[in-house]
Formats: sequence, structure tokens, C-alpha cells
Amino acid sequence: MEFTANKFPERLQQQMDFIREMDKTKQIIRQTYLTDGSRKEGDAEHAWHLALMVMLLQEYAQESIDVAKTMSMVLIHDLVEIDAGDTYAYDTEGNKTQRERELKAADRIFSLLPKDQGGYLRSLWDEFEEGQTPEAKFARTMDRIQPMMQNDASNGKAWKEHEVYLDQIMDRNKVTHKGSEILWDYALETYIKPNVERNIIKTRSK
Amino acid sequence: MEFTANKFPERLQQQMDFIREMDKTKQIIRQTYLTDGSRKEGDAEHAWHLALMVMLLQEYAQESIDVAKTMSMVLIHDLVEIDAGDTYAYDTEGNKTQRERELKAADRIFSLLPKDQGGYLRSLWDEFEEGQTPEAKFARTMDRIQPMMQNDASNGKAWKEHEVYLDQIMDRNKVTHKGSEILWDYALETYIKPNVERNIIKTRSK
Repeated sequence: MEFTANKFPERLQQQMDFIREMDKTKQIIRQTYLTDGSRKEGDAEHAWHLALMVMLLQEYAQESIDVAKTMSMVLIHDLVEIDAGDTYAYDTEGNKTQRERELKAADRIFSLLPKDQGGYLRSLWDEFEEGQTPEAKFARTMDRIQPMMQNDASNGKAWKEHEVYLDQIMDRNKVTHKGSEILWDYALETYIKPNVERNIIKTRSK
Repeated sequence: MEFTANKFPERLQQQMDFIREMDKTKQIIRQTYLTDGSRKEGDAEHAWHLALMVMLLQEYAQESIDVAKTMSMVLIHDLVEIDAGDTYAYDTEGNKTQRERELKAADRIFSLLPKDQGGYLRSLWDEFEEGQTPEAKFARTMDRIQPMMQNDASNGKAWKEHEVYLDQIMDRNKVTHKGSEILWDYALETYIKPNVERNIIKTRSK
């Protein structure tokens, strides 16, 4: 057993250990394909894309947002999936247990950090989940639109694989407009409607 | 030929086209392995990790930094590699043409955006490349430390593959301390020195 006197503060050690542990985010695979359909994307790539969108699309936020906070929110919103795994949006069974699995993951993961930072990241994650603040609404709109964009670009590959129906998409996107009316309108006209017309997104009588 | 009247502003269309095009960042593969050594990482994952580090390590910045700006900088710092490819840090031949290839890429890529945003992203990229402002110094420190962390975690896999020598690492990191003295000290003690002792990083008499 080794007892090494560490010259660095415990706080820094915890932060660097957390940063190394979060590398696992790259290995959590989502159901969404890259735009060329060559492979599914990972959580870290997804989060990067959302942060880029926050930077470029902030002018369309329905309410004024704190950009650094919104970027931070999207960067960390899927860290819990290191433990809880990715739950596909239209996986009915998985969605039943998702909240419970993710809460447990949040307890473990954010407690790896120094208390103040763990508390801050946990509050950002809770805020995202609740979706009530301007930042959370806009972050959630990004989180919904980005996979639609990639689904459309890849000829609906993930929609086809999972036989996704229009009513499921519309139900999942009931509040997407709250982050940005124009971006939701754009997504509807550009990514959804043309794929309904091409029968890539299926419809059914309820 | 179709002439569709587009109901959305040209500006929004350009932004959304850019966001789709930037998906290619995910396919640019770096020489650094994930912490478990299972595969090399992509540019988008790398940029995500740097942005997370900016969020968590900002307190160690040598000079006060604008966090949103520093995050934006790391999120976009490798976009030029969509055209120019990744140039490995210790690839002597590749490094001779890197600057020229990347300047050409920057001209094309940032001009895809509306003029004001393209100009802003270009100025962020230039600032990162020049490394003179507090934000650029800190961003570059993140960009140097993150692969060291992953190299150390993966038992030096990329260092061994490329037979990297200590003098090359020290030369490449001459200014890494400028973004944060304590983080460079941490990296040196935690990621570099133990791997020199284990002969994973090689030394030579010059």
C-alpha cells in the first residue's frame, strides 16, 4: 500500500478525477445517426453540437438567456447516462424507469466533485430536467431540434429503424416551441413535414 | 428545377446549414485515445471535453477570463479540420503545411455563416491560434492538458505508438503554464513525470 504525500489540493484532485471519469460520456451511444448515416453518435458529440447551436442561435431564444449558463447546461445534461445509459425517446418501457435511474446516477456523479461545484452542476441538471427557466427551455429546444436535423439529413434512418410515428414526435415536442417559436417552426417545416410527405415518418389514425 | 419560396430568413437558413455541415467535425479522428484505450477520439468529443474543463477549472486561470468566450473558443477551435484534417502534434512533415491548410479551411468554413457571425468565429479562431489573450492562453492550456490526461489514463498508448520523446513534449508545452501555472504543474507531476519514470515517454541525450 502506498501513502504518497500529494502536493496538490484535494479540491483540484477531485476536479481532475471527475474530468477523467467524464470521458465515459464519449462511449454512451445515442440512437441518432450522424448526418451521413455512417454511425450513431455519442453523448459527448451530441452535447458539443448543442453548445455550438446555443452559440449560433441564441438570438432566437424566446426569452433572454445567459449564454454561459445555457452552454454549461447542455454540456452536462447527459452526464447521468454514464450510469443510467441512453434511453431512446420513443422507448416506452425504458421511459418508465428512466427518471429513477437518472436520479440515482445524478446522486453519484455530481457528488464526485467538490461540494460547491457538484451542487452547481446538480442544480443545472435539475433545471434542465424541469424545463421552466429561459435557459432550460432554450436548451431543451436545442436538444430536440438537433436529432431532427440529423434524422432528416440521414434520410430518416433512426426514424425508420424505430418506426416512429408523427403523433409520437408531436407529443414529445409539445413544449419545444417555448424555447424558440421560430426554430420550432423551422424544424417542423424543414425536418418533419417533408418526411411525413415522403412517408419516412409514419402517420396513423388514432 | 424547383423554385420554392422559403418562408424563413436567409440568415436562419445559413445558420442551420452551417450547423448541419459542422456535423463533420465528429468524423475527424485525433491521435489521442479514450481513457480506456478502446479507440481514438473525434474532434467534437475533444472540444466537448475542453469546454467541460473550462467550466470546472476556470478558477485556476492565470488571468481573469470571460467564460462564455473561452467555451466558445474551445468549441470551435478545430472546425477548420473538417477541410484541413487533424495534424498530429509531433508530425514534423504535417506541421510544415498545417498553417497554410488551416487558413484556407478557415476562409471557406467561417464564410458559410452570416457575415457578423462568421467574422466573430474567425476572430475567435485567430485569437486561439495567436494565444495572446487570457482566454486564448487558458483555452490552449486545456487543449494541451486534456490529451495528456487521456494518454496517462490509457497507459501512454498514443505516446508509445508515435514514440514520443520528453523533449518534444516539453517543447510543445513551452507556454502551457501561461494559462495556468498550477494546472501545468499538476499535468507535469501527474501525467508526464510518472510516464518518464516508467519509460513510456522516452528520453534522449540531445
